[in-house]
Amino acid sequence: MAYQAPVNDILFALRSAGGLDQLIENGVYEGLDLDTVEAVLSEAGRFAGEVLEPLNRPGDRQGSKLVDGTVVTPDGWGEAYRQFTEAGWSALPCPEEFGGQGLPGIVSSAVCELWNASNLAFGLCPLLTQGAIDAIHIGGSEDLKARFLPKLVSGAWTGTMNLTEPQAGSDLALLKSRAVPQGDGTYRIFGTKIFITYGDHEMVENIVHLVLARLPDAPEGTRGISLFLVPKLMVNADGSLGSRNDVVCGGLEDKIGIHASPTCVMNFGEKDGAVGYLVGEENKGLATMFIMMNAARLAVGVQGVAIADRATQRAIAYANERRQGRSMGGGEGPVQIVEHADVRRMLVTMQAMTQAARAICLVTAREADLAQRASDAEARQQAQARAALLTPVAKAFSTDIGCEVASMGVQVHGGMGFVEETGAAQYYRDARILPIYEGTNGIQAIDLVARKLPLGDGKVLRCYLQDLGAIVKDVRESNRPEFGHMGERLGEALAALGEASMWIGEQLKKNPEAVLAGASPYLRLFGITAGGCYLAQGALLAARDGVETDAARYVGLARFFAENMAVAAPGLAQSVMGGADSLMSIPTSRLSI
Amino acid sequence: MAYQAPVNDILFALRSAGGLDQLIENGVYEGLDLDTVEAVLSEAGRFAGEVLEPLNRPGDRQGSKLVDGTVVTPDGWGEAYRQFTEAGWSALPCPEEFGGQGLPGIVSSAVCELWNASNLAFGLCPLLTQGAIDAIHIGGSEDLKARFLPKLVSGAWTGTMNLTEPQAGSDLALLKSRAVPQGDGTYRIFGTKIFITYGDHEMVENIVHLVLARLPDAPEGTRGISLFLVPKLMVNADGSLGSRNDVVCGGLEDKIGIHASPTCVMNFGEKDGAVGYLVGEENKGLATMFIMMNAARLAVGVQGVAIADRATQRAIAYANERRQGRSMGGGEGPVQIVEHADVRRMLVTMQAMTQAARAICLVTAREADLAQRASDAEARQQAQARAALLTPVAKAFSTDIGCEVASMGVQVHGGMGFVEETGAAQYYRDARILPIYEGTNGIQAIDLVARKLPLGDGKVLRCYLQDLGAIVKDVRESNRPEFGHMGERLGEALAALGEASMWIGEQLKKNPEAVLAGASPYLRLFGITAGGCYLAQGALLAARDGVETDAARYVGLARFFAENMAVAAPGLAQSVMGGADSLMSIPTSRLSI
Repeated sequence: MAYQAPVNDILFALRSAGGLDQLIENGVYEGLDLDTVEAVLSEAGRFAGEVLEPLNRPGDRQGSKLVDGTVVTPDGWGEAYRQFTEAGWSALPCPEEFGGQGLPGIVSSAVCELWNASNLAFGLCPLLTQGAIDAIHIGGSEDLKARFLPKLVSGAWTGTMNLTEPQAGSDLALLKSRAVPQGDGTYRIFGTKIFITYGDHEMVENIVHLVLARLPDAPEGTRGISLFLVPKLMVNADGSLGSRNDVVCGGLEDKIGIHASPTCVMNFGEKDGAVGYLVGEENKGLATMFIMMNAARLAVGVQGVAIADRATQRAIAYANERRQGRSMGGGEGPVQIVEHADVRRMLVTMQAMTQAARAICLVTAREADLAQRASDAEARQQAQARAALLTPVAKAFSTDIGCEVASMGVQVHGGMGFVEETGAAQYYRDARILPIYEGTNGIQAIDLVARKLPLGDGKVLRCYLQDLGAIVKDVRESNRPEFGHMGERLGEALAALGEASMWIGEQLKKNPEAVLAGASPYLRLFGITAGGCYLAQGALLAARDGVETDAARYVGLARFFAENMAVAAPGLAQSVMGGADSLMSIPTSRLSI
Repeated sequence: MAYQAPVNDILFALRSAGGLDQLIENGVYEGLDLDTVEAVLSEAGRFAGEVLEPLNRPGDRQGSKLVDGTVVTPDGWGEAYRQFTEAGWSALPCPEEFGGQGLPGIVSSAVCELWNASNLAFGLCPLLTQGAIDAIHIGGSEDLKARFLPKLVSGAWTGTMNLTEPQAGSDLALLKSRAVPQGDGTYRIFGTKIFITYGDHEMVENIVHLVLARLPDAPEGTRGISLFLVPKLMVNADGSLGSRNDVVCGGLEDKIGIHASPTCVMNFGEKDGAVGYLVGEENKGLATMFIMMNAARLAVGVQGVAIADRATQRAIAYANERRQGRSMGGGEGPVQIVEHADVRRMLVTMQAMTQAARAICLVTAREADLAQRASDAEARQQAQARAALLTPVAKAFSTDIGCEVASMGVQVHGGMGFVEETGAAQYYRDARILPIYEGTNGIQAIDLVARKLPLGDGKVLRCYLQDLGAIVKDVRESNRPEFGHMGERLGEALAALGEASMWIGEQLKKNPEAVLAGASPYLRLFGITAGGCYLAQGALLAARDGVETDAARYVGLARFFAENMAVAAPGLAQSVMGGADSLMSIPTSRLSI
């Protein structure tokens, strides 16, 4: 079935949870208006549906292949990429001084969803390039920026992020790749990197690798890691391409999904070393990397939303087509399975979870925007802190939702979901990478409890919970019968989140292991509470001010989420606060085979 | 890593939740003793580890292929099957009068887990054959039994179940396959069946298809369906094989997983009709089918346990091998990731969920045994009803657990989980069929609330809840500090299950759609409450009487489950009782694209 960009749902999330109207009114997004946002989304949606979606399944079936040392992407991939860049999509969120369009992050995040919904394996290529652009923009010298950014922004070249090594995944302190200074300002890089997305391919003439490596005299651990720019082909001072650099793709991984996206083993310096340029300061590569990684983590969260939305669309289409069983009210012949209450529960759950995760991602993008654009320094700082708080939730909650919704999508299809023919299967397979890459969801949960909750001595979190509390208060005071128990359930969820947060605050120093044992259920608790509140904010907007379309649906989704998803909150809080004791009562020796 | 049959965990579940010691003492299982059970499990585990496990990954990579109209299984498959039958494993649970060993269902269920853990795609072949044996044994004439059962029991031939047609999946009323009586007691079958597991293959010389079809004058709907036995090769009166019957495999499905298990399109009667023999009475095929399907549904539940156990083993092995990050206590160098609290939470969750699902399946198998073996008629009837109550829970809860645990197994592996190399990926892919086939989990949930809860006017359920209540009471009264909040949490879960059950009892007639809307969360609520109680029963046994090994672990798992999984119960009850209103507030028109 054709891909329909969820323009209405995205706009609604931008306006309700994202507060876009007010931000435009306040002049935060200079030159932007709602009509422009809608036009960009519609146009991107058209491109996604007409160009990217038709390649999704054939690309999965064919996969990228390593042929004579070069990665060959599936048929049509290169042409689609050419159209993508010619239409200017790669430049959308990029700095204007390097040829970008400087669209705010909240809008480019929304657009990013469309690429990844229609074709996740394709969407990864600009996503990673964006990461490289960010890293160079943050840490690169003027010369590096001038030489590399215009081509990356235009999409003439693509970029990669090279962090992982066989022995160093979540733990970057263990990385071994070496960088040897040449005395002329350049370095030679030696080492093997794995899991490098689009590490090589034939769609563009050059690829710009951002690579973490150690200098000879670097301290051990994470304080001795530097970041280097290593082009596939050397770039002369005049911008022309020179000789091949000493970096090659040594192999491709055979994966559960995203078959069209080449996951490369990259070998640097098999001959005399790959020429690299330092980005940022020596031994401070991780700092640059982490700034860039926050954006990438949010983008991966958006991928979770994307795959969830696409899986939901396909499941709804199938449920409206497939006829089995009788309706409860009797009637002639078999009914569309969307009529069955259990199928409806799945479809509504899928929609509600998707919209909740979408709201969390867009709010995170807004805060990242405000960290740059807010008029006074304090507001910028507050927004920066809130973006930091929400980023692990946006990444982990949304990608868990992506997997869960994709799995429900298979289930709605029944036996047809398990066969590859319908496409539901591919979403299930593709989605599974999302909780893993760009920092596993466990790492995100640990980041949330151990680094983000203590921000500003807990004040960042407290202010956030107060804001959620204001939404719950509005819902309760609205006294609308169509809201059902929405206010009550969200109030209970927020209380549970508050209690669990307090407990973490008390235990973090005393008993850090207990806190870490509860990190994952805490992140889930955070996600369903925040997501429920954002949907409720939408319900308030829809019910009070009315919206053009779908007001009843947005109220229904918010109520359903509160009464069916958010009700898990008290149990999750118990798991956060009480889980560690029993966990630790099982001797580690019993966790070995 | 090598497969280790979880003999201790199975024996412990058999003795605690299953109550095997007492059943043996009471003479229910004549001739059986614990040493024999352990010996059978150990020997089966050895076979599974040495013969089936090594074929699992190569079989997945190679897959079954359709070559010149015949299915060719992967290399080594036929030889493994030959060894399997020669060792007598296929005959284990079969009636002794046809050459079987007559082992009780509770033991053969336990053994079934081992085949499916080591090789799910292989395990399906005997599983389906067992279904065919059951159907013929229940409904077949003396002649059919004599002619077909000995070869099926010995494994010389295999069997299939042919229910689904393109337009008739969950809704068998829609099936169209035709059976034309020939006046000589035989029928000719015409029609296309899909999703037929091991519908064709070259491992044995004959295949016995059990096929649902309609007689010419049959009533519409499910009351007009008859069951037929259709051999691949005709079988002469003397047992020798005759000519090829008019049934062929028309194609294989391309699936997410279980690649080695051929999922066939079967075409019956493309020429002059496939010769078939009536099994049971005309138009009453579903009755026979449903008796058989209860056993098959339990077996699929066991497959869920199996894949969960295997995924857990592999994740534990990886977590003990992979080194990343520092331990909280400091110390030199990177630690095994099993030391990290978040990884431990995943591993312990996987173990606890697996053992809970295992207990539910084995209790269901015991009740099915007692329905045959109990000394008085009332006890047999009660056991029959309880088996009926528990079967949908055993199927759906265990297979959901199978998928969830397999997904956690991928997560424990990080990036290595998404690549096929480690094997974790295959469990994730293979497991996904389990919530779908043999009646989707949604169908199981509907069966539970609409057919099983009303059994005996609700008395069957009430007695069951009382039995669970007795366990909770014992836990509470034991006052053991190592039990933590186990009794309290299980008490809350049981209260939630009781309340939701009462609500269903009240609403089922008045507002059936609301009940169906809550069916799936109700089944989950049932599963975690029952599973938590069975683990607690194990903890009581381990703490009171002591067990040879692992007493602290069994207590720890029970406590962890109660304090981390069972705490979801009150939220699920809210979802059951309050979910329908908001679900139905969203107009169906908004569930179409």
